[in-house]
Amino acid sequence: EIGEREIYFCRTLLDRKSEKRTDAKWLNIKQKQPTTVYILFSNLSPLVASDDGEDTSQYPKIKLHKLSYKDVKEYLEQPETITLIFLGVELQVRGSLLPTLKGKEASKGEDDSLVAWFALSMDATAADRFIQKHQECYFLHPPMPSLLQLSENEAGVIAQARSVLAWDSRYQFCPTCGSTTKLEDGGYKKSCLKEDCLSHQGIHNTCYPRVDPVVIMQVIHPDGNHCLLGRKKRFPSGMFSCLAGFIEPGETIENAVRREVEEESGVKVGHVQYVSCQPWPMPSSLMIGCIAAAVSTEIKVDNIEIEDARWFSREEVLGILNKRNQSAFFVPPHQAIAHQLIKHWIGMNANL
Amino acid sequence: EIGEREIYFCRTLLDRKSEKRTDAKWLNIKQKQPTTVYILFSNLSPLVASDDGEDTSQYPKIKLHKLSYKDVKEYLEQPETITLIFLGVELQVRGSLLPTLKGKEASKGEDDSLVAWFALSMDATAADRFIQKHQECYFLHPPMPSLLQLSENEAGVIAQARSVLAWDSRYQFCPTCGSTTKLEDGGYKKSCLKEDCLSHQGIHNTCYPRVDPVVIMQVIHPDGNHCLLGRKKRFPSGMFSCLAGFIEPGETIENAVRREVEEESGVKVGHVQYVSCQPWPMPSSLMIGCIAAAVSTEIKVDNIEIEDARWFSREEVLGILNKRNQSAFFVPPHQAIAHQLIKHWIGMNANL
Ligand SMILES: Nc1ncnc2c1ncn2[C@@H]1O[C@H](COP(=O)(O)O)[C@@H](O)[C@H]1O
Ligand SMILES: Nc1ncnc2c1ncn2[C@@H]1O[C@H](COP(=O)(O)O)[C@@H](O)[C@H]1O
Ligand SMILES: [Mg+2]
Ligand SMILES: [Mg+2]
Ligand SMILES: [Mg+2]
Ligand SMILES: [Mg+2]
Ligand SMILES: [Mg+2]
Ligand SMILES: [Mg+2]
Ligand SMILES: [Zn+2]
Ligand SMILES: [Zn+2]
Repeated sequence: EIGEREIYFCRTLLDRKSEKRTDAKWLNIKQKQPTTVYILFSNLSPLVASDDGEDTSQYPKIKLHKLSYKDVKEYLEQPETITLIFLGVELQVRGSLLPTLKGKEASKGEDDSLVAWFALSMDATAADRFIQKHQECYFLHPPMPSLLQLSENEAGVIAQARSVLAWDSRYQFCPTCGSTTKLEDGGYKKSCLKEDCLSHQGIHNTCYPRVDPVVIMQVIHPDGNHCLLGRKKRFPSGMFSCLAGFIEPGETIENAVRREVEEESGVKVGHVQYVSCQPWPMPSSLMIGCIAAAVSTEIKVDNIEIEDARWFSREEVLGILNKRNQSAFFVPPHQAIAHQLIKHWIGMNANL
Repeated sequence: EIGEREIYFCRTLLDRKSEKRTDAKWLNIKQKQPTTVYILFSNLSPLVASDDGEDTSQYPKIKLHKLSYKDVKEYLEQPETITLIFLGVELQVRGSLLPTLKGKEASKGEDDSLVAWFALSMDATAADRFIQKHQECYFLHPPMPSLLQLSENEAGVIAQARSVLAWDSRYQFCPTCGSTTKLEDGGYKKSCLKEDCLSHQGIHNTCYPRVDPVVIMQVIHPDGNHCLLGRKKRFPSGMFSCLAGFIEPGETIENAVRREVEEESGVKVGHVQYVSCQPWPMPSSLMIGCIAAAVSTEIKVDNIEIEDARWFSREEVLGILNKRNQSAFFVPPHQAIAHQLIKHWIGMNANL
């Protein structure tokens, strides 16, 4: 078992409180509270600062630069230059705040003391202006791989905010009729401004943010002691990873695993077992991690997406994971679910 | 374990052969072969006929009405009135066709004998004209619950075809710039016709069909002997089912289960276990079925989506599944993954 909370982008500080998204009055009050947290984005990159805490990892740590209402007031007053997404309220640590809260709730009204978070995305001009005034922070660009240097708790917030903002930025027009749209419900719905548009009728998904399910799989050789890893053409030299691909319409997770493995490597897969998943906000995927049992061994890469694929022995994989024997190969960093799937397989019945 | 192939919409007759989608010449040859199968759609409803085979189920059986090139030639010649999707080629039954094929392949060129399937959707005028000439068949309308009366093998093909056609029909315009688009790659890609549109740059999903992941969960009471079932307002009177909801951007399967259960019923969930999934082509969801362990028991329905939710005992659920004791309640039919999840739980550690 892979611990759910151990996977990057999986942990979150927030309760999304979706029932408040349609409560314009509540959202408005929250926007103005001094405790409210704003995280800023420009061109889908979050505003960060370097983290002075102890540096235990291989990467320099960074942290989100949090702002408050007074810091962003001037931008909120120009709504045409920004996008505002309600992210949720800070999760209450059980027992700590609750007793005091109870009294407050009675007098001050429901959940007044909850700390709300908003994502505020600004256009390039506003972002430049902002940066000139705040030299201690910067917009993280390019997002990858730098986004992997956040703390686990902040990563989950970014997964949510960046996916919704990416959808907002690329879905400005109604796909059904081509008209302009209006962002509603705290940032989670886009309504077409054309009154008689078909998008206002019937059950459909055109007004909601997109989540693209992807399968990613550790394919195990019939001998149980080798796994199949492949290289995309654009990978850095020497890097191999699990095969992966988008789930297609009308397809199950298990059949998507079989189809993608056969398409990319020519290997046939039988049994498929779900292991764990990971949101991947580039722009808005959900990586569904599986273990897949190969029932054939001959490799024939597609040479379109995958340029090389090989069976790696347990020993080779262990060497790579432990960075022993100056291996010519490496796998993605621990923040990628591929890394966790590979490690999971090594742990499954290893004789270390 | 629920058998993968036993879940409705999960089994398919076809190999999607996605590598052929960009091979216009091959697709063109396949369109004209006499063995090629066309299934017709109008307004997302497939053309069907009643199935004269033995009727073993509670519902009257229907089957897809398959057509060949000569039947649809006139429609193919008016491409502006139709949408054509390449669905794949018939899966080869191992051993049966292969020996004869080998000889043919050598002489006639690669996979000439593979039987291709296309979905052909026609506009209302063409559909009316078609039906007048073919009295033995009809467009299945409304699709639900009639779509559940197909054979398991045909259901998988419909899951694929209907999801892609639903996307095509509602995503006629580029969401990034509002321009018109062109359907490409056998029906699996839409390109914006505006040359300098942002959709031609960067990694994004706007040109690809949508698959919406949904969690659906059998929530188990801490005592292990009750499960939580709820009613949507629009359910037929007496029907209860598993709770379900869309996975949100930046969210894991497991956290979506916890959030939706708490939102809809007030019950808190701890451990979540994936069981199996089901494509649901209304319009294009992927239902991800889980077992969820409740860690609280008090129910407080949202009264927006869910109007009632209750803990049902094993005995009550068994009575409902076996339609014993004229129960006032019922659950969705066996074609729904909710039914399979409920049954799965009953089988998990039942003392029948
Ligand atoms: N939602 C999507 N987002 C991005 N690419 C997609 C999507 N759906 C299908 N594709 C295609 O899938 C290719 C990547 O292959 P794979 O990840 O193996 O399925 C991309 O180059 C696209 O052509
Ligand atoms: N992709 C989507 N398709 C349809 N409805 C969605 C989608 N995403 C979010 N929703 C909203 O989710 C509601 C259903 O709630 P639930 O299925 O419990 O998440 C719908 O009424 C919509 O408001
Ligand atoms: Mg791939
Ligand atoms: Mg693919
Ligand atoms: Mg692929
Ligand atoms: Mg729901
Ligand atoms: Mg929901
Ligand atoms: Mg819900
Ligand atoms: Zn519209
Ligand atoms: Zn465009």
